[in-house]
Amino acid sequence: MAVRVTVWHEYRHEKRNPKVAGIYPQGIHEAIASHLRKFPDLEVRTATQDEPEHGLTDEVINNTDVMTWWGHMAHSDVKDLIVEKLHHRILQGMGLVVLHSGHFSKIFQRLMGTSCNLKWREEENEREILWVTRPGHPIVQGVNDHFILPREEMYGEFFDIPEPECTFLISSFGGGEVFRSGCTWTRGLGRIVYFRPGHEMFPTYHDPNVLKVIENAVRWAAPIQAPAPQDFGKHLLGWMDQK
Amino acid sequence: MAVRVTVWHEYRHEKRNPKVAGIYPQGIHEAIASHLRKFPDLEVRTATQDEPEHGLTDEVINNTDVMTWWGHMAHSDVKDLIVEKLHHRILQGMGLVVLHSGHFSKIFQRLMGTSCNLKWREEENEREILWVTRPGHPIVQGVNDHFILPREEMYGEFFDIPEPECTFLISSFGGGEVFRSGCTWTRGLGRIVYFRPGHEMFPTYHDPNVLKVIENAVRWAAPIQAPAPQDFGKHLLGWMDQK
Amino acid sequence: MAVRVTVWHEYRHEKRNPKVAGIYPQGIHEAIASHLRKFPDLEVRTATQDEPEHGLTDEVINNTDVMTWWGHMAHSDVKDLIVEKLHHRILQGMGLVVLHSGHFSKIFQRLMGTSCNLKWREEENEREILWVTRPGHPIVQGVNDHFILPREEMYGEFFDIPEPECTFLISSFGGGEVFRSGCTWTRGLGRIVYFRPGHEMFPTYHDPNVLKVIENAVRWAAPIQAPAPQDFGKHLLGWMDQK
Amino acid sequence: MAVRVTVWHEYRHEKRNPKVAGIYPQGIHEAIASHLRKFPDLEVRTATQDEPEHGLTDEVINNTDVMTWWGHMAHSDVKDLIVEKLHHRILQGMGLVVLHSGHFSKIFQRLMGTSCNLKWREEENEREILWVTRPGHPIVQGVNDHFILPREEMYGEFFDIPEPECTFLISSFGGGEVFRSGCTWTRGLGRIVYFRPGHEMFPTYHDPNVLKVIENAVRWAAPIQAPAPQDFGKHLLGWMDQK
Repeated sequence: MAVRVTVWHEYRHEKRNPKVAGIYPQGIHEAIASHLRKFPDLEVRTATQDEPEHGLTDEVINNTDVMTWWGHMAHSDVKDLIVEKLHHRILQGMGLVVLHSGHFSKIFQRLMGTSCNLKWREEENEREILWVTRPGHPIVQGVNDHFILPREEMYGEFFDIPEPECTFLISSFGGGEVFRSGCTWTRGLGRIVYFRPGHEMFPTYHDPNVLKVIENAVRWAAPIQAPAPQDFGKHLLGWMDQK
Repeated sequence: MAVRVTVWHEYRHEKRNPKVAGIYPQGIHEAIASHLRKFPDLEVRTATQDEPEHGLTDEVINNTDVMTWWGHMAHSDVKDLIVEKLHHRILQGMGLVVLHSGHFSKIFQRLMGTSCNLKWREEENEREILWVTRPGHPIVQGVNDHFILPREEMYGEFFDIPEPECTFLISSFGGGEVFRSGCTWTRGLGRIVYFRPGHEMFPTYHDPNVLKVIENAVRWAAPIQAPAPQDFGKHLLGWMDQK
Repeated sequence: MAVRVTVWHEYRHEKRNPKVAGIYPQGIHEAIASHLRKFPDLEVRTATQDEPEHGLTDEVINNTDVMTWWGHMAHSDVKDLIVEKLHHRILQGMGLVVLHSGHFSKIFQRLMGTSCNLKWREEENEREILWVTRPGHPIVQGVNDHFILPREEMYGEFFDIPEPECTFLISSFGGGEVFRSGCTWTRGLGRIVYFRPGHEMFPTYHDPNVLKVIENAVRWAAPIQAPAPQDFGKHLLGWMDQK
Repeated sequence: MAVRVTVWHEYRHEKRNPKVAGIYPQGIHEAIASHLRKFPDLEVRTATQDEPEHGLTDEVINNTDVMTWWGHMAHSDVKDLIVEKLHHRILQGMGLVVLHSGHFSKIFQRLMGTSCNLKWREEENEREILWVTRPGHPIVQGVNDHFILPREEMYGEFFDIPEPECTFLISSFGGGEVFRSGCTWTRGLGRIVYFRPGHEMFPTYHDPNVLKVIENAVRWAAPIQAPAPQDFGKHLLGWMDQK
């Protein structure tokens, strides 16, 4: 049974900044989705913020196994009701792969319980090296012991997240900063991945290693079986009462 | 320098139910606070939900190192603005010790990012045995390998919490259920403890082992130094720009 | 590509105790292996302690993706050289599923770095209830929120293990004890599972839930690709020298 | 009650290499010990590898609360019997602070269960920046958000350790590598710290930030009470039998 993936994207930079549009003519979401569509075990659709309900109708949410999330300039415009629905669905088992500036999205902050703050520096064509710190993990399958992005935006520690269950990538930057760039957590039945790279001004989502990590993360975060969108949140009776 | 402790309590059951009032004539908060006041390294005050601002003025919040939290019937009446202030202060370093039905408090759900749901059974004078699963941890100092509460309310797994950084107590109940009754997490600079026992219909907060664990938890959750209530949440420049 | 599974068993109780032989006429290893052989994605062989080299020649070790391990009365007879080879192979990526009294095996102690000690009580036909504490984890796929073994041997906390990366099952026993019965860790590239039930005097390995958890654990612990049995342990040059 | 600290050192480089002797005329152990001796809550002694029993008689081991460990060229000369005694004592509660090349010591490998391997580069007067990744942790009390060592030896990921319970420092190096330089684990009742810097050819143990972290780590790793050197490892009866 295919994993049903929804690639969600804010999709505003591309419409306003010709440089970004030059790098991602169809938007960042299409750069990601077109890679994922190569694999028959993944069933891919996209949704963007300025569609009705941000493209996230109940029908879409209830039929998504894993969602990827890129947002940056318009986090606060995402409706709280949609965030509530996403949160509920993740606790039921939907996977979430948060990309780059998505660290400040409402849904990621909601899942982490922290500020998700970090250090950053204005884009400077800076070299990022990503080092694998958990070889053997499914998310780094097919990736060497490190890979290099010649131009990226710097994110630096302290990254205010709960201690990850697994840290699979750590970056260094030209300025000497470090960052936990690949991390996983579990919330309810849902698996969460954070993956750092992806500033809109650079062709990061055309990089084969970046696309490979996203592809692996989507498979890893998929629920063990698509859970029915029923209410996990209600009080249950004790087991003796169920007999 | 003493640890400044605020024992927060919903304080409604005692006013409505004579049986509860019989067990806790001054309220659950006073049962806890009167134990903590025995120790010169702890500086203890109390605050209750029906005081103005729930007893949690800015002055109180900014001068609290560790807060203990008991709530049950009125979680939804706690004002969102107060929860925001508490959350901000915890990320700056204030410790939080969540007790029993506080698992469903707004502040605990906010910190965990999960539903914090669990199984439960109406009070049945049920035996609870709490087993130490991390001997040597400061929170179980002075506690034997297990202790018994002859009458408590059952809480059973699945307890919907993020994987704890440390699980120091696991309970079994008369009905055969189990529960992770002592857990710790870090959020921002703040240390969080959840400690299960404490149903209002039983004299749990008169039990010496229960009081000892709360006392230890308060000391463990204290910040390494009372952080100034300044803004931890703003963007910082990279280290190179600071030179 | 099938997962190559080696079901390893001490296989001494069955030869000496007619009661055990009555429950497991072909040995515990065959009870487990015959279940796993039902699945075309698993390629199953067995090995036992009293075969030459404990059945674990270099050829077997190098061509095993996941090993299950049951031992009890003869841990100290397992040759240190074989343990060294297993340890090396696990760090390269081989999965290990340790069963019941295997908690005191040399290989498990070597991987954990602790005594792996626990409380226990002579077999007493005692009821064990196993509660799922991480629903949604691949290892509990197809298992209800709990399952019951009517007769088992008691293991109680404190179980001297490193804090698990994930605790997916916790047991309670008739005597009121609790035990972390399903736990995972990572060592090098290898994934390790401990799964508690399985006293030789009871028909535990005929229980469908127990077999299901073992089957799931084997799939979960499989390496992301069978790593070549080459030396992972040597010093590497820094990445700059590799250019 | 003071924390009884034993600063253990291999103490061979200083005797053979005049450059090392120039930096540490009394040995690395004295550079560390002389800092710790400033604090009345710490009771400090030293022990070195070429003393009888490596300076680690039963009397010393049984009366040490926290040990720091530096070794490099002579790991294999440390007697297995001494390592066994240290391991047993740590599981009973003694803290261990492993420094720099101590990552390849027998005792650290024994506690971790992994190879503890890493990438490294011959000493090159390389800049190391250590970034705090868990502000608020007692081990980084008094340390800024980062500190710089102008000349150190490079250690790079993958560092083959179990996922740390807490990663409090991550380094970057001039060559672009990263390393988890401050990590903690629990083994039995004992708390373990790994702290990376300290190549013998550089004056690292004269750096105030490095000394502060070691001082903090010693206090953090101290047992909650000096446990009696009795046998923690024996089988215990179940609690019902103890009644």
